[in-house]
Amino acid sequence: MARVGTRPENRHQARFLRILRDSGPQSRAELGDAVELSKSKVAIEVERLAELGFVDVVGLAASRGGRRSQMVALSQNLRFVGVDIGATSIDVAVLDGELNLLGQDRAETDVRLGPGPVLDQATDLVAKVRAELDGTITGVGVGVPGPVSQAEGALVAPPIMPGWSRFPIRDVLGAALGAPVMVDNDVNVMALGELHAGTARSVRDLLFVKIGTGIGCGIVVGGEIYRGVNGSAGDIGHIQVDGHGPVCACGNTGCLEAAFGGAALARDAEAAARSGRSDWLAERLLAGNPLSARDVGAAADAGDPVSLALVRDGGTRIGKVLASLVSFFNPGLVVIGGGVAGLGHPLLAEIRSVVYRRSLPLATGNLPIVLSELGGTAGVVGAGRLISDSVFATN
Amino acid sequence: MARVGTRPENRHQARFLRILRDSGPQSRAELGDAVELSKSKVAIEVERLAELGFVDVVGLAASRGGRRSQMVALSQNLRFVGVDIGATSIDVAVLDGELNLLGQDRAETDVRLGPGPVLDQATDLVAKVRAELDGTITGVGVGVPGPVSQAEGALVAPPIMPGWSRFPIRDVLGAALGAPVMVDNDVNVMALGELHAGTARSVRDLLFVKIGTGIGCGIVVGGEIYRGVNGSAGDIGHIQVDGHGPVCACGNTGCLEAAFGGAALARDAEAAARSGRSDWLAERLLAGNPLSARDVGAAADAGDPVSLALVRDGGTRIGKVLASLVSFFNPGLVVIGGGVAGLGHPLLAEIRSVVYRRSLPLATGNLPIVLSELGGTAGVVGAGRLISDSVFATN
Repeated sequence: MARVGTRPENRHQARFLRILRDSGPQSRAELGDAVELSKSKVAIEVERLAELGFVDVVGLAASRGGRRSQMVALSQNLRFVGVDIGATSIDVAVLDGELNLLGQDRAETDVRLGPGPVLDQATDLVAKVRAELDGTITGVGVGVPGPVSQAEGALVAPPIMPGWSRFPIRDVLGAALGAPVMVDNDVNVMALGELHAGTARSVRDLLFVKIGTGIGCGIVVGGEIYRGVNGSAGDIGHIQVDGHGPVCACGNTGCLEAAFGGAALARDAEAAARSGRSDWLAERLLAGNPLSARDVGAAADAGDPVSLALVRDGGTRIGKVLASLVSFFNPGLVVIGGGVAGLGHPLLAEIRSVVYRRSLPLATGNLPIVLSELGGTAGVVGAGRLISDSVFATN
Repeated sequence: MARVGTRPENRHQARFLRILRDSGPQSRAELGDAVELSKSKVAIEVERLAELGFVDVVGLAASRGGRRSQMVALSQNLRFVGVDIGATSIDVAVLDGELNLLGQDRAETDVRLGPGPVLDQATDLVAKVRAELDGTITGVGVGVPGPVSQAEGALVAPPIMPGWSRFPIRDVLGAALGAPVMVDNDVNVMALGELHAGTARSVRDLLFVKIGTGIGCGIVVGGEIYRGVNGSAGDIGHIQVDGHGPVCACGNTGCLEAAFGGAALARDAEAAARSGRSDWLAERLLAGNPLSARDVGAAADAGDPVSLALVRDGGTRIGKVLASLVSFFNPGLVVIGGGVAGLGHPLLAEIRSVVYRRSLPLATGNLPIVLSELGGTAGVVGAGRLISDSVFATN
């Protein structure tokens, strides 16, 4: 079993581990083809990876003429943990070396409680999921809802998260879980999840747009997350979409996030319910719970025209921002994810309509705009990918 | 002298050539430090580069203790040619291996004449500049005002350039000039020029905004031009800035380019002159020439309030688009270039004011927004950098 903190010893070993993670078991001959190393050198590197506990020899491959080559697979004992901390929930998953889900759990939380209680809760949740599984944790990836300094392994000035700024999440969780930890912004982590296991697998330049309580964008350039010089790249929630729109929490007016997203939809739904414009929403409100994006989706599905208009109007606003970004960035794919993406087809149709009409034809000719296939697991799988990229690399 | 088509034989040689280009003459010891090669291997590679005609040994370095190391420099005979084809002009420069300007010339043209006559004109201009200099052409870089397919070395469906789409610029110029040719979008080429010799030298992620007849943006990620999946990345001229704005040549309404840029300024200036709102512009118009952005700049400098308002209004529109892109991309630097950047301080002040107010504080905290230092030579220097990146690489 790979001891905690063990790393591959050179870039060939690191490359083998990533190939085995992304493409499953390979023969030694196939590994040799991928890195242009001689047979004997491949044999030596595979031997070392087996000694380090990273891989197992799992049998013989079909003959390609001559002696049959050994099949190599990632060790069954590798365990990556993905932690996705949202504003109101924590998701935890334990994954194998290929980042298949072995177990997962979820708990309600409130990030406004501060880092101490929330990270304690996350640690407990990880312990609970681990208890049902064997294996030692090889590494832990964490997504958090705000701008992250990767050098510090901490959030930097996240809005509405008192006590979190520069709190050493990486070091505290690393000590509690006894494994290396990597921290990144939740949207980047979800984009990594799509890149690993979703529709984005074969695309190198793409945008992942998360529409949750707030709105953010993960940017993938050449198969890697692009973070910008301060780690704030993709923070599109405060792009102005309406010079006379509502005042945003950030102090500006007409921000995308103030106009659309989970929080804005809940606000608009409640206004529609109270003013009597939507009987459907009024009924839901009377049932006792505060309205949410989910209620608007259900009402739209049931034929409530006011709710449908809210969804369409939101799609138009997102679409206008995306149209600009598509012209600027010329991506190969746009994936829409996050809770509000659950509004589904009417939202997607509106976004597509605006982007395809407003962006340059050259940039949209072959551009798919799709809903996330992974949905709720994009975050934990992506967090696993984040830490495995770090462990499967030379220092 | 390096024969035409010669390339370095391995990645160490390629790296040495780029170091010598970007940092000037180096001792063999310094080259060895940069690539972590043994003394004897560095000596072998330098020897080969000298045999290939790429470098010369130019003396002995100061002692670092022990024997003095040989100083190595790019061969004085290397000649790169930069060609910058604009809508109405061709600029040509001959550069040495370090991309210093040895000679340059400029001619008026009209790209609407089609590729045949314009490329003939460019070839003649190159011949004229070469005639005054010795050395064989090592390679030619070309910037053209439209979207480029690098694989084809050709423009793809450029607006208002009849006959240019898919015309094999690279192959035709390569045959005429007898040297390898690389073609790219003019804005990307200017961004490369800034990266090589301008304020952007030490920055890895930046935006170069060209405001000429039209408006475009060069995107630099990790020190390399980012082109997007179809090569259209940075095409920001058709981002919508005003839902009720003027109709653009592209068929949409309210595009940035329809609201600002050289063509839009000329149109607005003429309207102001004819309607009697600006006596200054009316006088210029009566003098006989059609009004241009240059007239608006001169009028603004002379205190014409209408012209100043046109410049400020344009700055606001550019600033709003840039604010969104800065939030999205989180660059380390924004450089404003192109002919209209000659409007200078009032334009820059307005752009800065909008971006610093509208973008996220985290993204603008340390963000300089500056005018191009290179001005008119950014294109030809960048074109030289484009082809030297290609020649100073293994195939």
